[in-house]
Amino acid sequence: MEHPENSEEYKGLTVNKGIEQPSSINPYLNLRKKPKRRQFTVGEYVEGIVKGDVTVLSQAVTLVESVKPEHQAVAQEVIEKCLPYSGNSIRVGISGVPGAGKSTSIDVFGLHVLERGGKLAVLAIDPSSERSKGSILGDKTRMEKLSVHPDSFIRPSPSAGSLGGVARKTRETIILCEAAGFDKIFVETVGVGQSETAVHSMVDFFLLIQLAGTGDELQGIKRGIMEMADGIIINKADGNNIEKAKLAAAHFRNALHLFPAPESGWTPQVLTYSGFYGIGIKEIWDMVYSYIDFVKKNGYFDYRRNEQAKYWMYETINEHLRDSFYNNPAIASMLTAQEQEVLQGKATSFSAAKKLLDTYFGNL
Amino acid sequence: MEHPENSEEYKGLTVNKGIEQPSSINPYLNLRKKPKRRQFTVGEYVEGIVKGDVTVLSQAVTLVESVKPEHQAVAQEVIEKCLPYSGNSIRVGISGVPGAGKSTSIDVFGLHVLERGGKLAVLAIDPSSERSKGSILGDKTRMEKLSVHPDSFIRPSPSAGSLGGVARKTRETIILCEAAGFDKIFVETVGVGQSETAVHSMVDFFLLIQLAGTGDELQGIKRGIMEMADGIIINKADGNNIEKAKLAAAHFRNALHLFPAPESGWTPQVLTYSGFYGIGIKEIWDMVYSYIDFVKKNGYFDYRRNEQAKYWMYETINEHLRDSFYNNPAIASMLTAQEQEVLQGKATSFSAAKKLLDTYFGNL
Repeated sequence: MEHPENSEEYKGLTVNKGIEQPSSINPYLNLRKKPKRRQFTVGEYVEGIVKGDVTVLSQAVTLVESVKPEHQAVAQEVIEKCLPYSGNSIRVGISGVPGAGKSTSIDVFGLHVLERGGKLAVLAIDPSSERSKGSILGDKTRMEKLSVHPDSFIRPSPSAGSLGGVARKTRETIILCEAAGFDKIFVETVGVGQSETAVHSMVDFFLLIQLAGTGDELQGIKRGIMEMADGIIINKADGNNIEKAKLAAAHFRNALHLFPAPESGWTPQVLTYSGFYGIGIKEIWDMVYSYIDFVKKNGYFDYRRNEQAKYWMYETINEHLRDSFYNNPAIASMLTAQEQEVLQGKATSFSAAKKLLDTYFGNL
Repeated sequence: MEHPENSEEYKGLTVNKGIEQPSSINPYLNLRKKPKRRQFTVGEYVEGIVKGDVTVLSQAVTLVESVKPEHQAVAQEVIEKCLPYSGNSIRVGISGVPGAGKSTSIDVFGLHVLERGGKLAVLAIDPSSERSKGSILGDKTRMEKLSVHPDSFIRPSPSAGSLGGVARKTRETIILCEAAGFDKIFVETVGVGQSETAVHSMVDFFLLIQLAGTGDELQGIKRGIMEMADGIIINKADGNNIEKAKLAAAHFRNALHLFPAPESGWTPQVLTYSGFYGIGIKEIWDMVYSYIDFVKKNGYFDYRRNEQAKYWMYETINEHLRDSFYNNPAIASMLTAQEQEVLQGKATSFSAAKKLLDTYFGNL
């Protein structure tokens, strides 16, 4: 039997084709200039956000994502003023290979979490989003129930840039969302290694979605990702798939057993569920909440949040130092030649590096 | 039964106490100044090394390890002139937790490899060697047969410094050894994560020594190390231990199966052996050599050596950039305060980083 997600039954999950737009009566209408939206002051942004005004929050996030220096200056002030109101949330990273059913799962998880109370923000990190036209969370219809829920705020990944840049913006958006009263934050990411590391360094719990299967599928997981997981959940554990899913869970439990115990003292768990049929959802969130209780009691929760704040400070510094070097015009024009010298065995890695460094510091 | 390595039988492995020195007839003899050793010219170093003169090689390595700028300048010239003679070797990284029997194994492996012909250099990377008084390879008696073999060259880890510095020196020593005709290079390291990564980025084959055991022992492996291994070998597969070792091997095979396939296209293998009884040694080196054949045929061998050369160029640059920043006096005096601002929620990670970066670039 074909899995229901691939069949006609799954109507709710297919993206409906949009209707054809009627031709405009006045074809020049679009050329009229839209009145420019008045820019809020820092005070107005902060006030609006702290009141929970989602429109103001949205505009602040746009500011955070802007590359314009004047926008960045305002954004940084807003974030700094929001800091005292932030932090009071549970941040959950959600990852999984394409096809694992991430969107359906997040939709179902979100509704479940909201039933338990509070407000939920769903953010994303996808450094490739410009190229792929914002595939990740770009299309809100992917989470059709959650996207119309009054207590949810869904925001696609900041558009492309370096992973560090994209991740920083998402991290700052978390602060704004928390200040606006969102006490559950999901950060979604695609299964491509580096972005998982970024997400892992800004969340409290890292949830890895996997599919039922034995062995071969596991090969799709990028190095190190499984070791980051606080919980692994096997999707599509329904119908004929249940046994396969249980087998996969046993497989993963064995694998986790081989890894060093996480610093948190928590033993990562493996659960099965069905996003489509809504089976096993409560158990997943019971696990997440018992983890949060556990690390709040043993002090790891605060410790880790502090470590993360430090990590991002140092990460920002190191990334900027590298950018300054590799974007230096003198370096950019020398780099390939030096690399070639090294590859052809004419220079050692160290002497080539030294030549480049001398040029850089001489030109600063 | 106690394992033989812990019993009296293992006499050959204990370090003999040195004999008492007879008292000097002339107690002031030692005060006479030793004649200063004449410093070789770059040409003399290179000539001596290429001729395979181990005394000259030793002195050149000492130069590489020196922190004095004038020594470094000569060292870099020597290395660069040796580059055309280097590269023609098999480089094997050997790692394992303390107690796994690394020294005995390397002694036995070395003799076996030398029986097959050629010359062997054994180097090490241990960034903690100054603190621990050069525990790793510092004491040549740890490899008592190999250390007196005419075709072997054993060199302890460069003494402490940053891991990057220590690793660079070892990498440069590899070049000198190869130029001196050593066509087999072992690089030993302790099981502490970061240094494995450094070793992995300078060898062709990464061998991980483990002990027989089921489950719990595996917890001792640092994150990511098992994923680097091209071969895992279980030591002490002898006597009553054979079954346990086989079980451990099965365990490791399962675990490796869960990792993504390595870039080389090679399937990492798990073997059992006994370093003490010399069982299974040939099979290990058959594995290593068949790996080398495999990656030379599919082109990965050269590809990887090139990637490693590039990696060390970029690594040297990035490390220097960080050093320049964090050792800047203005930064050093501000850093803790900025970190505190971040930890107390008074500044965002990004604004603290920006303040530090502005100070640094303003002071350069």
